Amino acid sequence: MINVGVLGATGAVGQRFVQLLADHPWFNLECLMASERSAGKEYRNAVNWRLDTPLPESVGGLKVKPVGVESSKGLDIVFSALPADLATTVERDIANAGVCVCSNASSHRMDKDIPLVIAEVNPEHLGLIEVQHDAGCDGCIVTNPNCSTIMLVSALNAIKHRNITDIKVATMQAISGAGFDGVAAMAIYDNVIPYIGSEEKKMETETLKIMGKFDGAEIVDAPLKVSASCNRVPVIDGHTLAVWTDAKGSVEEIINDFKNYKVPFGGLPTQPEKSVLYLDQEDRPQPRLDRNRGNGMTVSVGRVREGGRFIAMGHNTIRGAAGASVLNAELIVSRKLI
Amino acid sequence: MINVGVLGATGAVGQRFVQLLADHPWFNLECLMASERSAGKEYRNAVNWRLDTPLPESVGGLKVKPVGVESSKGLDIVFSALPADLATTVERDIANAGVCVCSNASSHRMDKDIPLVIAEVNPEHLGLIEVQHDAGCDGCIVTNPNCSTIMLVSALNAIKHRNITDIKVATMQAISGAGFDGVAAMAIYDNVIPYIGSEEKKMETETLKIMGKFDGAEIVDAPLKVSASCNRVPVIDGHTLAVWTDAKGSVEEIINDFKNYKVPFGGLPTQPEKSVLYLDQEDRPQPRLDRNRGNGMTVSVGRVREGGRFIAMGHNTIRGAAGASVLNAELIVSRKLI
Amino acid sequence: MINVGVLGATGAVGQRFVQLLADHPWFNLECLMASERSAGKEYRNAVNWRLDTPLPESVGGLKVKPVGVESSKGLDIVFSALPADLATTVERDIANAGVCVCSNASSHRMDKDIPLVIAEVNPEHLGLIEVQHDAGCDGCIVTNPNCSTIMLVSALNAIKHRNITDIKVATMQAISGAGFDGVAAMAIYDNVIPYIGSEEKKMETETLKIMGKFDGAEIVDAPLKVSASCNRVPVIDGHTLAVWTDAKGSVEEIINDFKNYKVPFGGLPTQPEKSVLYLDQEDRPQPRLDRNRGNGMTVSVGRVREGGRFIAMGHNTIRGAAGASVLNAELIVSRKLI
Amino acid sequence: MINVGVLGATGAVGQRFVQLLADHPWFNLECLMASERSAGKEYRNAVNWRLDTPLPESVGGLKVKPVGVESSKGLDIVFSALPADLATTVERDIANAGVCVCSNASSHRMDKDIPLVIAEVNPEHLGLIEVQHDAGCDGCIVTNPNCSTIMLVSALNAIKHRNITDIKVATMQAISGAGFDGVAAMAIYDNVIPYIGSEEKKMETETLKIMGKFDGAEIVDAPLKVSASCNRVPVIDGHTLAVWTDAKGSVEEIINDFKNYKVPFGGLPTQPEKSVLYLDQEDRPQPRLDRNRGNGMTVSVGRVREGGRFIAMGHNTIRGAAGASVLNAELIVSRKLI
Repeated sequence: MINVGVLGATGAVGQRFVQLLADHPWFNLECLMASERSAGKEYRNAVNWRLDTPLPESVGGLKVKPVGVESSKGLDIVFSALPADLATTVERDIANAGVCVCSNASSHRMDKDIPLVIAEVNPEHLGLIEVQHDAGCDGCIVTNPNCSTIMLVSALNAIKHRNITDIKVATMQAISGAGFDGVAAMAIYDNVIPYIGSEEKKMETETLKIMGKFDGAEIVDAPLKVSASCNRVPVIDGHTLAVWTDAKGSVEEIINDFKNYKVPFGGLPTQPEKSVLYLDQEDRPQPRLDRNRGNGMTVSVGRVREGGRFIAMGHNTIRGAAGASVLNAELIVSRKLI
Repeated sequence: MINVGVLGATGAVGQRFVQLLADHPWFNLECLMASERSAGKEYRNAVNWRLDTPLPESVGGLKVKPVGVESSKGLDIVFSALPADLATTVERDIANAGVCVCSNASSHRMDKDIPLVIAEVNPEHLGLIEVQHDAGCDGCIVTNPNCSTIMLVSALNAIKHRNITDIKVATMQAISGAGFDGVAAMAIYDNVIPYIGSEEKKMETETLKIMGKFDGAEIVDAPLKVSASCNRVPVIDGHTLAVWTDAKGSVEEIINDFKNYKVPFGGLPTQPEKSVLYLDQEDRPQPRLDRNRGNGMTVSVGRVREGGRFIAMGHNTIRGAAGASVLNAELIVSRKLI
Repeated sequence: MINVGVLGATGAVGQRFVQLLADHPWFNLECLMASERSAGKEYRNAVNWRLDTPLPESVGGLKVKPVGVESSKGLDIVFSALPADLATTVERDIANAGVCVCSNASSHRMDKDIPLVIAEVNPEHLGLIEVQHDAGCDGCIVTNPNCSTIMLVSALNAIKHRNITDIKVATMQAISGAGFDGVAAMAIYDNVIPYIGSEEKKMETETLKIMGKFDGAEIVDAPLKVSASCNRVPVIDGHTLAVWTDAKGSVEEIINDFKNYKVPFGGLPTQPEKSVLYLDQEDRPQPRLDRNRGNGMTVSVGRVREGGRFIAMGHNTIRGAAGASVLNAELIVSRKLI
Repeated sequence: MINVGVLGATGAVGQRFVQLLADHPWFNLECLMASERSAGKEYRNAVNWRLDTPLPESVGGLKVKPVGVESSKGLDIVFSALPADLATTVERDIANAGVCVCSNASSHRMDKDIPLVIAEVNPEHLGLIEVQHDAGCDGCIVTNPNCSTIMLVSALNAIKHRNITDIKVATMQAISGAGFDGVAAMAIYDNVIPYIGSEEKKMETETLKIMGKFDGAEIVDAPLKVSASCNRVPVIDGHTLAVWTDAKGSVEEIINDFKNYKVPFGGLPTQPEKSVLYLDQEDRPQPRLDRNRGNGMTVSVGRVREGGRFIAMGHNTIRGAAGASVLNAELIVSRKLI
């Protein structure tokens, strides 16, 4: 068994990690780390569990440990749901101590030596792990992208051979993306907030790295441009994206790309049967109806129209965060990269 | 006084017309027309009044008349909130009988002889009224555009001198746009519906006509392209638009265009002090906070960014429907076109 | 295997029935009945599937049959999600033809010869099946109560020994209870509707029958009074009840009743481990967090306070409708009553 | 002119005070007090204005002052929207310095020497002002009740002559009652929270004082019992109450009491034409449709049924908070009590 832990186990993404790892076939979740305020308590008493499945019995009794290298001793992999400011130093320290840090935080995504990975899209970027090892790090850091970026690029991967150079995307993002207390009800109810701090920049830069080339030493950005307009809407889970691309090809050809899209590997525990699923109905995908496909790991696509338009939608805290990170870890283990 | 009536007075847009006309300084609202089921009853008993201001006392006792030429006798202007299928023939009949029909319906918007008008944007298109008269019609039909189109073009009017050829727009539309029973709660709550029937096509064609040139006989479409992606979100009133244009100019220049935008005429009763208002805050405009500006007639704009991006938002049943129509009528009267 | 069918398979409750029966360990779902408009089509094409789990593959290809005796031939049990007006005659006809009709409809709930059953509460009322047989009916009708009534009485069953004579209950009911199109978004969004047609009367009469005594021939109402105030709130699934009773006993005693409540039988496939679950947190139960307990079959209770107050909450379309009916059928089969 | 100020001018209730006082016919709003963080800034820059009418121009430029006696110098009346913990000492200090403090805070409501007033219900309790003066206070404190209490007692006042001894009330409270950031969207969206801290106790104790007798020296609680069950629902503004009383009388008699209810005085600027308005429709009152009646000061009542049941609803931050306080001040001034 591979021993794993979660950094920041009590927040929204942290709880998703716990939900996905508690009874994982490959991973033994034996360490939950959180702030000083929670440390020392049993997880079931420290956490304000707010997911709609019960707190997993197998971990409820774990004593919460403080975030840090000391707590991470003996772990093979640590999954990080730390806020960005904390993640910057803590993750480097834990990696240097020999642990593989699979991080959902934004802090290191754009670092030159750190891969930014969507498992089905750019697994070869995991070659940067070796670059980190060669540089003297006993462990490593591997990051997954921002939630909206994951939905966009997962879908684009099915049509990337169509010479795309220009992408415009308007997002309609769910409130869970901001954490359990991240958006006040008075702020978003009967409302749209046409601004999510740093989100547009993340989509515009992360996409180029994920779709870029790994030349053995570093990633060379893909030669394309992304322009995003990110909005918060009154939806609990599930980000919806209205996308325009200059993909060459007819509507039928692009629909077939989505329908026939196959990922070159399979069988990872968290991997859905279909990473990308095309829905034919004229009014799909919709977050409340489609976010749980593939146990929250499938990105649904629909409404391909002329002008390179389509809609993509995926579960933002599973596919878009914790699930993406866990799938990365499964890929790393299956390829014996640690 | 100018005697006016409302066609389809009991529905969502019809109630907005009644709200705007009941105590109008220029117009005497003396005739309310609706379906057979309502005809003969007092309006207060026929209508299921659902606006958040009380049913105006001055019209509550009006006896509802059936839709048609007979009921319209003696009226100078009739405001139409009829569904499209009914509007097609009824509006032509009433116009032929000598009445000026100001219609919110989509039926005649793209007809060659009928102007599609946003009062502040293309008032000169009202010249088509004369074309209708010359063709033998005693009255006329004047239409206002689809709600989303109105928000888009009202904003674009401030920057149209910047050689715009390409526009992409993602809309997040309020549920009131579909009528009081148009969207089921189970369909939209905690959800986004990425499809609104015919909406994208309307935006893509109407925009070209409104921004086109009136050559004295007909409208020549503007030489630009619009690509829309229309979505329904859980908001009661207020459509939000994420727009991309290829407008030439810097961010500061475009912001100044919006801030300095002036409409060449003023003083119409329903005209807001500012048709377009630029908001500086980083997370504006927002429907719940900004939809009532200018009594629901102001289009708020914000978040101008590089790449010709901005956000526009306006009240969809006032500015985007009934208010647009009433303002058109005020313009027609002020210019003595009927 | 026991062959079963669903009457009214395309509506909200019908879809829940299909979801629960499609891969049932005891029941073979082989017949789906719906309106003429749907008859003849494959179920996957007839239904507008709107639950958040995919349409079960095993039944997607079933050809929908018209509602009626003919279609029910060969079935042992038929589950009815028919609207009340249809149910009145159709259910009697199908029962007379030898089928056991487990109905969610309100039509026959208060009939003298028909049991109104919550499986864990009044299984002995199933004795009325024999009364129906003795009266010459080859099959039978068994009904489950209204959704709110089920939550109320399921909870009361844990404290019924405390000499309760007076019950007041205010409900906050989810929109799914009205069917997929039953409540318009414009009607309920940012709103409370303090009226649900017939709901208060149903709660006030059904409760007395369910908690009444079966004397071998008929049910004698329980000698207590229920006064209800039913409200619709913007929640998708899950009815919340604020209850007052004159139950004798201290707060601790009543809490212990709820915690120690045991149902005298177990093991039915749809039966949850806990029919009633007491939650200690001060702000529970809450619909979004607790409605899925026991796969939607557990009624959660909390906030016991002096004055016989407590809060109860349960999933209105599973525990409160289809699940209740399926559990009744399982009980009937396990007791060999048909 | 009477010079007034607002304590805690930047929060949700504070903004309502500013909205009501900015252009008040009797009061000159010249002082806005808030926390250290805001002090010194112009109000328009200090406040995150979130009401749906624009920040009043007349006060936007006022320099925010720190909360305290010093800032209150020269004011006749100060309206307090302070949080309870601050209010406890600050309000006493400011009153002792000679100012009349009209407070929405809960801190002093139950103090023996401080009146708890709904202007139309128990104006005679203002006699306690004299008691405070006699005790040596140069100014005074007058409080308004908790929002839900105000709706309940305002309605009960129309039927209090019917020998009411027992009241049960279930509330469905709007999110604005918790302040702009008081409830997270993830907490309340698609949910009901069946607990609002201290709310039930406030309703149960405040009601007895407001409906009690002032004997010249203090208030003797009314001899009745209130049992409340308070819930938070996804509504922005407007608290809805399901009430049971043991009022003696028929349904018709009680309806007539509500319809004929008259307040013995009129003409105060903030006083609505009807303090209590009975609505005949079977599904009213509803918060979104009825909360703005009387400019947010009317309590709407409906659904009187046997068993002393009825529904009451009012705007929680206007009638239920700031408006109640301003109306109290108007009454105090009109009766020359300060």
